[in-house]
Amino acid sequence: MPNCEISKAALGRIPAYLRYLRSLPPNIRNISATAIARELGFGEVQVRKDLSSLCGSGKPKTGYQTTVLIDSLGSFLDRKNGTAVIVGAGKLGRALLDYEGFSDYGLKIAAAFDIAVSETEYSPKGNPIFEIGMMSPFCAENDVNIGIIAVPVGAAQEACDCLAKNGIRAIWCFAPCRLTKPDGVVIQYENMALSLAHLKMQIK
Amino acid sequence: MPNCEISKAALGRIPAYLRYLRSLPPNIRNISATAIARELGFGEVQVRKDLSSLCGSGKPKTGYQTTVLIDSLGSFLDRKNGTAVIVGAGKLGRALLDYEGFSDYGLKIAAAFDIAVSETEYSPKGNPIFEIGMMSPFCAENDVNIGIIAVPVGAAQEACDCLAKNGIRAIWCFAPCRLTKPDGVVIQYENMALSLAHLKMQIK
Repeated sequence: MPNCEISKAALGRIPAYLRYLRSLPPNIRNISATAIARELGFGEVQVRKDLSSLCGSGKPKTGYQTTVLIDSLGSFLDRKNGTAVIVGAGKLGRALLDYEGFSDYGLKIAAAFDIAVSETEYSPKGNPIFEIGMMSPFCAENDVNIGIIAVPVGAAQEACDCLAKNGIRAIWCFAPCRLTKPDGVVIQYENMALSLAHLKMQIK
Repeated sequence: MPNCEISKAALGRIPAYLRYLRSLPPNIRNISATAIARELGFGEVQVRKDLSSLCGSGKPKTGYQTTVLIDSLGSFLDRKNGTAVIVGAGKLGRALLDYEGFSDYGLKIAAAFDIAVSETEYSPKGNPIFEIGMMSPFCAENDVNIGIIAVPVGAAQEACDCLAKNGIRAIWCFAPCRLTKPDGVVIQYENMALSLAHLKMQIK
């Protein structure tokens, strides 16, 4: 599998490719980019480009082996460990904890932590919410590498530093603030209000 | 005020400009882009560009009149009605209903609607959650123009059509699906799983 960078848009199409390919009857052993594009309503050029960058070229006439395509796309999503924890178990933290779409991308939200929790709780889907002191042992035991900050602004930097200390290399921050970035950590901000404001500006 | 398009990044800086300008003592009647850039840690070129596109040029030496700047930036955010409703009052819908950052951008989440609600409920912050049948009269009375879809995939198209029928011109969709777009409606998708997957791919 080529170890390439792909665009966010291309990444977003992988679950659709996988869902379609996995739904095919086992006698469909080969499939062309053209057939996939037609079925999913994507542009043919786009599908060819996505598949060739992720899975190499298909064979002329026969296209791709279905099983090889499924393996390549699946292992692209899984090539980096995607185990995450959430700091802050308010409404947003709990919504993310039980959100079902993450597994489509090989992501697993393993637990949430909250200073207001003293005894371990479980979400409706059975995911644990621990007291904050449990973060160190939990991250070490579960090979966690992504942290999600869902605490108020005033607690966000502390959450960030605590995640970094526990070996987390990527942070997704929902608090509307700028964090001082620990060394070697990637931070992605999610500004919900800005997203909605941007949509409002597009109203004709 | 110039009626211009601005980038999402520039839009995201407006609340910071406003917070800073509003925090100044009343005797600071003029302020330069240089001073604002220094205070907020933004690039000076960026601040000049933002302010000149939103508020025209400052005067040589004196810069901008503080009150004029505040009025221009504030009315840019308010130039389009930003009253929104949410369809779906699960954890995500309720988290968005009480999220405090929206007012920074002149946005107001007025209510949520849910099929599982039969009598009006109120969120911890006092925002109403109505039965779905209340949507038509509520949208008409409150001049709602933005709809947020926070229902499962299976109910998303119905929610979208219902919002469009009630005059909503902009839809922010959290359900991981593609909607058939009603005429004249702008749709913005928020794919939480894709955002997290994109972050994961950036881990070194």
